[in-house]
Amino acid sequence: MESFAVSTRARSELIDITAEVKRIAGKSGVMNGLITVFVPHTTAAVTINENADPSVRHDLLKGLSDIAPANLPQYRHAEGNSDAHIKASLVGSSVTIIISEGRLILGTWQSVFFCEFDGPRTRKVDVQVIGKD
Amino acid sequence: MESFAVSTRARSELIDITAEVKRIAGKSGVMNGLITVFVPHTTAAVTINENADPSVRHDLLKGLSDIAPANLPQYRHAEGNSDAHIKASLVGSSVTIIISEGRLILGTWQSVFFCEFDGPRTRKVDVQVIGKD
Amino acid sequence: MESFAVSTRARSELIDITAEVKRIAGKSGVMNGLITVFVPHTTAAVTINENADPSVRHDLLKGLSDIAPANLPQYRHAEGNSDAHIKASLVGSSVTIIISEGRLILGTWQSVFFCEFDGPRTRKVDVQVIGKD
Repeated sequence: MESFAVSTRARSELIDITAEVKRIAGKSGVMNGLITVFVPHTTAAVTINENADPSVRHDLLKGLSDIAPANLPQYRHAEGNSDAHIKASLVGSSVTIIISEGRLILGTWQSVFFCEFDGPRTRKVDVQVIGKD
Repeated sequence: MESFAVSTRARSELIDITAEVKRIAGKSGVMNGLITVFVPHTTAAVTINENADPSVRHDLLKGLSDIAPANLPQYRHAEGNSDAHIKASLVGSSVTIIISEGRLILGTWQSVFFCEFDGPRTRKVDVQVIGKD
Repeated sequence: MESFAVSTRARSELIDITAEVKRIAGKSGVMNGLITVFVPHTTAAVTINENADPSVRHDLLKGLSDIAPANLPQYRHAEGNSDAHIKASLVGSSVTIIISEGRLILGTWQSVFFCEFDGPRTRKVDVQVIGKD
């Protein structure tokens, strides 16, 4: 397992971590297998989406905030971040990507994004590679 | 593969299954790998979220019920549990967690929760561990 | 890794790809392991849900369209498919299923569905199997 840190600068933010994931996949020496990117936090997540037009990231964060709005009167959790916990379970705490012939198999427009929903904070990402050399 | 049963007591409920998952990880003897927790049901799911304050669980279930309300007139499925099917696809049927040096790598506040969306029922959870001894 | 194509015929559509996934699992010769089904697109996804009553598929697509409506004035992305990007991150770009004793372990009512959110298009699905023969 390898880990790296992510520093977020806003309450909600998508940060492209594809380069770090590729680096760890390459370093592992695994030619055919799987790589799992896991976020060990309950108010953050990880997703795969478009990296070309930054407005996709804006619309994705706005869409998630419409789906799970902040500060609803129905929330009981006293920390005021229940929306972030809901987003974490909707988006998910991990992504698994195929490694084939030593390469990460992502689509042309796909990047891996760390999803901050209760920042800014310093966060951690854990990565595991399994398969055959 | 190992399986275990979960008895749910409400229509919507989150049940902490971390201890069972840890037990299966330990029993496998795998020191470095991945563990996949899979729910073989279409109106239930599995997620990772906060285990400390029970109000997070309340707010998560309430948030999901606002996102996919029960009994909308638009639903065609005659069983009356379309909301549960929608929640199952939003939250997901599996989680994958890293095993490193023989330990399940979860964040400080993370637990694995079986998500019942159409209970009460007796449910099943399947778990697979892969990696190196 | 194996790949196959999926031709979609509507903007939003769920297509059962379980047979292709089972075929690839069988061909791999892996008796105990995991199979990951990965969608290399940012306006499509993959999920596991009920295959028996087609109205579940209708209600799931309708539910997702209520959750992430098309053409909201707040969207900035000029391609007009921001709803599809949001649905892709909610549902997810991959599913991981257990292989045990040479069989795909799915529940009685579960099938694997390719989720088109911005069709019709010709799409691709990548599949990786890992484990022991």
